[in-house]
Amino acid sequence: MLSRSQSARVRALQRRKGREESGEFLVEGIRLAEDLIASPVVPRLALISPSLEDTPRGRDLATRVRALTPAIDVTDAELAQLATTETTQGIVIIGSIPRVSLEEVALDGRSLIIVLDAVQDPGNFGTVARSADAFGAALIAALPGTVDPWNPKAVRAAAGSSLRIPIVDTTLEALLSRLRARGGTLLGADARGVSVEQEVYDGPVALALGNEGAGLSEAVRGACDQLVSVPIGGAAESLNVGVAAGILMYLLSRSL
Amino acid sequence: MLSRSQSARVRALQRRKGREESGEFLVEGIRLAEDLIASPVVPRLALISPSLEDTPRGRDLATRVRALTPAIDVTDAELAQLATTETTQGIVIIGSIPRVSLEEVALDGRSLIIVLDAVQDPGNFGTVARSADAFGAALIAALPGTVDPWNPKAVRAAAGSSLRIPIVDTTLEALLSRLRARGGTLLGADARGVSVEQEVYDGPVALALGNEGAGLSEAVRGACDQLVSVPIGGAAESLNVGVAAGILMYLLSRSL
Repeated sequence: MLSRSQSARVRALQRRKGREESGEFLVEGIRLAEDLIASPVVPRLALISPSLEDTPRGRDLATRVRALTPAIDVTDAELAQLATTETTQGIVIIGSIPRVSLEEVALDGRSLIIVLDAVQDPGNFGTVARSADAFGAALIAALPGTVDPWNPKAVRAAAGSSLRIPIVDTTLEALLSRLRARGGTLLGADARGVSVEQEVYDGPVALALGNEGAGLSEAVRGACDQLVSVPIGGAAESLNVGVAAGILMYLLSRSL
Repeated sequence: MLSRSQSARVRALQRRKGREESGEFLVEGIRLAEDLIASPVVPRLALISPSLEDTPRGRDLATRVRALTPAIDVTDAELAQLATTETTQGIVIIGSIPRVSLEEVALDGRSLIIVLDAVQDPGNFGTVARSADAFGAALIAALPGTVDPWNPKAVRAAAGSSLRIPIVDTTLEALLSRLRARGGTLLGADARGVSVEQEVYDGPVALALGNEGAGLSEAVRGACDQLVSVPIGGAAESLNVGVAAGILMYLLSRSL
């Protein structure tokens, strides 16, 4: 049974303000809960309802979660009321948002950094985070104006990747300073940029992705060493932003 | 002012059954309406409300649409009630679904065909359609069990690409027969497939993309000449399906 203050704590995490105040975020469902407990992210509280124990996989997860973190048993109906998804699969975990600073992430000549310059859509954030994770990026740098990576929709779309890859809230100035100190390059994704296929970079390389409608901000565009594009000419403008970013990461991961 | 039968006609197109019975689909908003009238798709009826004429671009579109197709003037409120988006921007067009048969699409040694094997999510359909369009695919073949490409969400996610690229409803048997007659190859996207980077194909090449959860069906998997993957090893499993498809299309478009 949940107390009123416990359910208020969970509900508050559905909003950015609540997450910023508490430094906590929500994970729902079996797959993400498994990813969370296998990641460096610290779980603070689990809510478990009977339906989790319907399957061997769920029972195993329940046992492991109870061993790691305080857990409250709630009814399926209570959990459903707190959920942001259609089905919680019987588990919600409150995790501690991993706050990583730019200085804490090691960079070398093969490092790829993904920079989000006011990317707004949680689904696009998630898609980009999955690609960054798959292509072994060192970190995701979220510049001001970017969607909150710990928004439940963004966490879901990232399918566990945001639990594995460092996500740093930073500014263009701080990023440039760190990048320059390591002899790195800032690239900006832009349909009118040069074909990334023709280039070879000495890393670290940071790839900036702009807002879905407006593209890169003036400040970021001005700071870029080069604007790069998917090598398909004008047709690249018609690619989904997540797809264009994925192809650029693929190509950069080959050339680093 | 809309008659009751006119609004019933529009509403029916929000459901698959209604689209199949009438052979019509809906397009909402300025950008898609512009794409539609620039495409081979035949508009059958336009609904225009005063807010379309708020901008020079909207007024220009209104003039062009009225010259092409019967148009009914409706109020902004009437149009909002019929819309599936938050804002129609003052225009909804009923278009005739372009029914193309496999035989009508010319194929040569450089042709790329995208095969959807029960892809379910309208957003994924749209992302894939945009990539297929950007990489110059000859057609999209939708096998049974695939989301309706003319679903309003799928049309929106495709951002005009479904109006430009031929979309064919077909079966595996018909596709194989056409492909074999042209000496073509059927590839299946699968995280355990061989790296597509290492291969050179004599076209036409068809690339089959499976269901988001279950992957390729047994029948399609069995019919494939080769299973292919994005060359990043196991990490490819963590890519969003639209991103993986986009990278594969990029690589295939280079090797054809």
